[in-house]
Amino acid sequence: MELPSFKNIIEAHHLIKEYIHRTPVLTSSAINNIIGSEIFFKCENLQKTGAFKFRGACNAVFSLTEEEAIRGVGTHSSGNHAAALALAARIRGIEAHIVMPSNSPEIKKKAVAGYGGIITYCEPTLQARESTLRNIAEKTGIVVVHPYNNPKVIAGQGTAAKELLEEIPHIDLVMCPVGGGGLLSGTALSVKAISPLSRVIAGEPSGADDAFRSFRAGFIIPSVQPKTIADGLLTSLGEINYAIISQNVDDIITVSEESIIKAMRLVWERMKLIIEPSSAVPLAALLENKETFRNLRIGIILSGGNVDLGNLPF
Amino acid sequence: MELPSFKNIIEAHHLIKEYIHRTPVLTSSAINNIIGSEIFFKCENLQKTGAFKFRGACNAVFSLTEEEAIRGVGTHSSGNHAAALALAARIRGIEAHIVMPSNSPEIKKKAVAGYGGIITYCEPTLQARESTLRNIAEKTGIVVVHPYNNPKVIAGQGTAAKELLEEIPHIDLVMCPVGGGGLLSGTALSVKAISPLSRVIAGEPSGADDAFRSFRAGFIIPSVQPKTIADGLLTSLGEINYAIISQNVDDIITVSEESIIKAMRLVWERMKLIIEPSSAVPLAALLENKETFRNLRIGIILSGGNVDLGNLPF
Repeated sequence: MELPSFKNIIEAHHLIKEYIHRTPVLTSSAINNIIGSEIFFKCENLQKTGAFKFRGACNAVFSLTEEEAIRGVGTHSSGNHAAALALAARIRGIEAHIVMPSNSPEIKKKAVAGYGGIITYCEPTLQARESTLRNIAEKTGIVVVHPYNNPKVIAGQGTAAKELLEEIPHIDLVMCPVGGGGLLSGTALSVKAISPLSRVIAGEPSGADDAFRSFRAGFIIPSVQPKTIADGLLTSLGEINYAIISQNVDDIITVSEESIIKAMRLVWERMKLIIEPSSAVPLAALLENKETFRNLRIGIILSGGNVDLGNLPF
Repeated sequence: MELPSFKNIIEAHHLIKEYIHRTPVLTSSAINNIIGSEIFFKCENLQKTGAFKFRGACNAVFSLTEEEAIRGVGTHSSGNHAAALALAARIRGIEAHIVMPSNSPEIKKKAVAGYGGIITYCEPTLQARESTLRNIAEKTGIVVVHPYNNPKVIAGQGTAAKELLEEIPHIDLVMCPVGGGGLLSGTALSVKAISPLSRVIAGEPSGADDAFRSFRAGFIIPSVQPKTIADGLLTSLGEINYAIISQNVDDIITVSEESIIKAMRLVWERMKLIIEPSSAVPLAALLENKETFRNLRIGIILSGGNVDLGNLPF
């Protein structure tokens, strides 16, 4: 198993710099007062396609040789990775084949189509998604880009924490959400390389706590019927992700649905930023554990902002 | 009548720099494609208190002598200026008396109280607001800070455009909304001083078009029963503001309510930024006049982000 390193993150940053937004780091006195710490929010909700996923997708797409690229790329996803891969491919001028479950929300289908992705619909099961993608890959020779269990993707995601630490010195703790572990593994590699004494802690919904249980157990425990409003965090940890996380992450904290919604609303109201529920999970962890995290300098990666405005939890 | 100049804006910037956020300038390829121009959004919705108003309030408060400051400041307002003045006063450690109509939305009362403002309620008429404030001023000796017809406030508001032009070179056109004219007059002073060949154009709702009519007529025509979703733009032009605007602004364009809501939704969905309806007015003007503004580099000041999440127009 090929594990990416911080060197790969530096290379990724060089490669994707001209295509991504260097997202701002924002602060809120109001939220600092509530938590009792100084928090620096790295706004990946303001990244292209509305999520950090564009960094990893860009690195995967622009790392391809000309020969590979000409055949196109593909993935199965109903979420942010699909839109990110479609846009990265369009920028490189190649095809992106996206396999989506037929019951995907209209808003997601529109986003992928809007970025020029070639959509193939399938039954809404993991088996159908994988076999449909495999069929396309066999016919077309596309390079399949996994949303998180992929070294290039992980290296791309790590560039967000790299930018954060370059901009804000003396961070005690960096936090992000964990789903499949792409963002968390990339973040941990960057933080431990740039600032070895800083801690890395992830937040995870209690209703989808496979990473928490895997981290405690010492081996991967797959997710079974996860249920959370944080729809970006329903996936199980990838193997490469787990290998990096188990070595480089200090802790994983689970949070309630109520805290996620409360944290999300806080960011909307006090920071005027649209974030999706997954993005609110680290702040939810701080809300539930104020005493533990008092008087620290904390970096939080706001992972994305893709929500259906017609279906808000408040 | 004392008219502020760009020199006053430079002084204001020095004075308030350490208290305000230097807000980011963000771009959106999706919106650029829709309009056919390159747009640079100066995000004053991410300013402290959620609006550009904090710049002007800060300059007014920190320009006071010790002797003046000790007596406190005051204003009548149910909007963003009240919260801005309250916070600026709190930072300087002085009192802010805010006269609010008794029917002000709960969310506004909470915001002003949250920033430590001393609220006096009155009947919801302009007469009651002015006489209540006059009574307080006579008793306490506070300095009354008008929300826009005030040279210090105008100079403070002008710092947003100054930052925008310092960061983004070669802007063909700078746009902002116009209500009382505080932001527009400050913006025009900055733009014409820093980049004399750039144009300054304001957007105004058709249902509250007193600035448009005043600009065309050559004298102030007060607002009569204005009606628009852009609740920050219901006020009539101030005299100082009008004097500056008539000399330095290139045009004022009116827009429909439908375009305002469409532009607001576009910024929410594509930029993941919470903006209030007033902020969407310049983009609405571009949506209604795409041909006129094609292939330009356009700066837009997103004026604020204070909306009631329970009462969205979409």
